[in-house]
Amino acid sequence: MATLEELRGQLDVVDDQIVKLYEERMKICEQVGEYKVEAGRKVFDRVREKEKLQNVASKVSSDFDKKGIQELYQQLMSMSRKLQYQQLVKAGALGRLPFIEIDSLGVEKARVVFQGMEGAYGQAAMKTYFGEDCNSYSVRTFRDAMEAIEEGAADYAVLPIENSTAGAVNEVYDLLVEFENYIVGEVIIPITHTLAGLPGAQLSELKRVYSKAEALMQTTRFLEEHSDWQQISVANTAIAAKKILDDQDRTQAAVCSAYAAKVYGLEVLEDNINDESGNCTRFIIVTNQKVFLKGAKKISICFEVPHESGSLYHLLSHFIYNDLNMSKIESRPIEGRSWEYRFFVDFEGNLEEPGVKNALRGLREESRSLKILGNY
Amino acid sequence: MATLEELRGQLDVVDDQIVKLYEERMKICEQVGEYKVEAGRKVFDRVREKEKLQNVASKVSSDFDKKGIQELYQQLMSMSRKLQYQQLVKAGALGRLPFIEIDSLGVEKARVVFQGMEGAYGQAAMKTYFGEDCNSYSVRTFRDAMEAIEEGAADYAVLPIENSTAGAVNEVYDLLVEFENYIVGEVIIPITHTLAGLPGAQLSELKRVYSKAEALMQTTRFLEEHSDWQQISVANTAIAAKKILDDQDRTQAAVCSAYAAKVYGLEVLEDNINDESGNCTRFIIVTNQKVFLKGAKKISICFEVPHESGSLYHLLSHFIYNDLNMSKIESRPIEGRSWEYRFFVDFEGNLEEPGVKNALRGLREESRSLKILGNY
Repeated sequence: MATLEELRGQLDVVDDQIVKLYEERMKICEQVGEYKVEAGRKVFDRVREKEKLQNVASKVSSDFDKKGIQELYQQLMSMSRKLQYQQLVKAGALGRLPFIEIDSLGVEKARVVFQGMEGAYGQAAMKTYFGEDCNSYSVRTFRDAMEAIEEGAADYAVLPIENSTAGAVNEVYDLLVEFENYIVGEVIIPITHTLAGLPGAQLSELKRVYSKAEALMQTTRFLEEHSDWQQISVANTAIAAKKILDDQDRTQAAVCSAYAAKVYGLEVLEDNINDESGNCTRFIIVTNQKVFLKGAKKISICFEVPHESGSLYHLLSHFIYNDLNMSKIESRPIEGRSWEYRFFVDFEGNLEEPGVKNALRGLREESRSLKILGNY
Repeated sequence: MATLEELRGQLDVVDDQIVKLYEERMKICEQVGEYKVEAGRKVFDRVREKEKLQNVASKVSSDFDKKGIQELYQQLMSMSRKLQYQQLVKAGALGRLPFIEIDSLGVEKARVVFQGMEGAYGQAAMKTYFGEDCNSYSVRTFRDAMEAIEEGAADYAVLPIENSTAGAVNEVYDLLVEFENYIVGEVIIPITHTLAGLPGAQLSELKRVYSKAEALMQTTRFLEEHSDWQQISVANTAIAAKKILDDQDRTQAAVCSAYAAKVYGLEVLEDNINDESGNCTRFIIVTNQKVFLKGAKKISICFEVPHESGSLYHLLSHFIYNDLNMSKIESRPIEGRSWEYRFFVDFEGNLEEPGVKNALRGLREESRSLKILGNY
C-alpha cells in the first residue's frame, strides 16, 4: 500500500493537469463570450448545459463520480457564464440600469412619514436620519406609511425592518414585496425599554401593562416575574404611554422608551427592562422612486425559489462566484401557497459594479419573481 | 474567428480530459481514505486544504482564474471528504449515534402537555396526533411546556412551529435552542378563524376584539375594515373566547376557531375571516429523550455561522454534495450578539443514512454550535 506522502504526490501530478485544462477551458469560454456579444445571444443556454451534464456523467462509471462530475460542471459552467456576463458589461451590452443614481436625497426639503405618534421609536429613528427639525407627520400603520409614499403624499417613510433580538419585522418585509417602493437608506437606533406609570404608582398595584407586541416580547423575562399582569398590545409604545396618561389609572403601566415616558409625563417605575442589553432596531428609509445614492454599498433583493432539490443552493452560488458577501438571508411564506417560500437576501455591493450585474442577471434567469428592493 | 460549433468542439475535447482526470483523482482519494480509516486520522485537514488552494491558485495567471480554480478545488476537496466519510461509515469507524432509534412513541400511555387551554388550536393538534382521549394537561406558555418536558412532568409537548401565512413561531425556535428537548413528530392542522361574540351581539356594537397576536395578524384585512375596534392580544385564541363568555359584555368579541366558540357558548358573528384561505399551522411533538422513530424522514438542525464571506454558502454545500434536499431555512438573531445569526435548516433524511452522517460531520467541523433538533 502506498504511503500518504506517495498518494499526495500522485494527487499533485493529477492536479497540475486539471489546473492547466481549467485555464485552457476558460480561454475557449472567453471566445464563446466574444461570439455571444457580437451575435447578441443570451449567455444562459439551458439546453446546452443540460446536454453537457448528461455527457460528462456518461463518461464516468461509479454513481458517486456521476453525481460529483455533474456538480463540478455546474460550477464550471456557472463560472463561464460569469465570465461572459463580464464581457457583456465591458462591451456595454448589458443596457442601462432600472435604478437612477443620485447625489443626495435632498433631506432638507423632504416630507417624511413615520408610523406611530409623538414619542415613538420610529420618530427617534427619523430624527437621527433626517435631523431634529425635519418636516414630518405620522400614520397609524406600516401599510398607511407605504401608501403615503406610493401616492407621493410623503417623500420618504421610516420603517423598522429588523430588531437585534426579535428578528425581522415580517409585516414590513411583506409590504416591500406588495408595494413598488424602494429602500434608499438605513439607520440603526438603540432600543431601551422602561416600565412607565403614573407618577407615584407602585409595581405592587399594577394590573395591566400596555405596549407594542414586539416590546412585550423583548421584555419577557421581566414580565414573567409579574405573570398576574394582563398584557395588552397596542400599535406602538408611544400609544401605550399616552394611554397611561389619558386613563389616569394607577393600576396601568406602559413598556416604552424613557423619551416617550417624558413626552407623556410618566414616571419610569423600572428602567432598562430589556431581556438583552445592546438591543437595537434597524430602520429603513423608503421612497417611491427607483433611485440609489452614489456610493451605496448594500443591496436588498427578494426572490422565490422553484421547487427543486438544490435550487436555493444554486441561486446562492451567484453571490459566491461574484465575490459578493451575503450579510443576511430571511425566508417568508408566499401568500396563498402553503410551505413555499420567498427569500430576502442582503449583500454588499453597488448596482454599478459588474459583479453585481452578473449576479443579478444570473439570479433573474434562475429564480422566480426577483425584485431589487433597493441599494443603499 | 472560430464558429460557435468549432469552439464547442474544442470544449468537448478539453472536457473529456478533465473528466478522466477527475475520475483518476477520486481513485487516489479513495486510497487516502483507506489509509485514514486504518490510521484513525481525521478526514478534514485544514492545513493541507489551505496549502492545496494556494498551490492551484499560483499556477494560473488571471485573477478571475485564480478565484475560479480555488472555488473548483474547494468543491473537489469537499467531494473527497464525502467519499472518505462514506469509507468510515462502511468500516464502522463512525461510531454510534447520539440518538436512539425506537419503534413507537407509546402514545397510548403518554402524558401530553399543550400550551393554552380547552379549545386551543394546540389542543386540536394534540388530539389529531395522540387521539381524542389522550392523557393531557395544559400550561400557560411555550416555556412552561418546554420545562414540563425537561423535568419529565409530561412525556411529550405539542408546540406550534410555523404557520403557512405568518411564518415561523420565533419563540419556539429560540426555546428549541435553549432546552435539551428534541422533536420526534409533527402534525399540520388547518387554521380557520372566526369572529365570535355573545349570542345576539351585532358587529356594529363591537368595541374590542381579543385574540392571540398571530391570529390578529392573520385577520388583518377583516380587522382593518373595523379600525375603530381596539385589538387586545392574549396568550391564545381560547383564552380570548373564554374572556368573552366571562365578561358578558356585548361590545367584545374574540378571533378564535369555531371549535373554541362552541366550547365557550359563543355565536360566530363572521365565519372564516382569514386573510388567506388554506391557512394551516405545523405543530411539533417534543420530548426530553434523544430518540427518533424508525423510518423518520426529516431532520431539523441549527447552527451558527462564523463571520466570513461565503461561510453560509460553504456550509450549505454539505447538503448538496450528499444529495440532501433542504426543505426550509430560517435565520434568527443570536441572543446578545447584534446582527449575528443562527440558522435553522430542515432537510429530508434519516440519521442512519451515510449521506446524513457525512453532512452532519462536515457541518459540525465547519459551523459553530451545531445542534440536531430531531429526526421525525
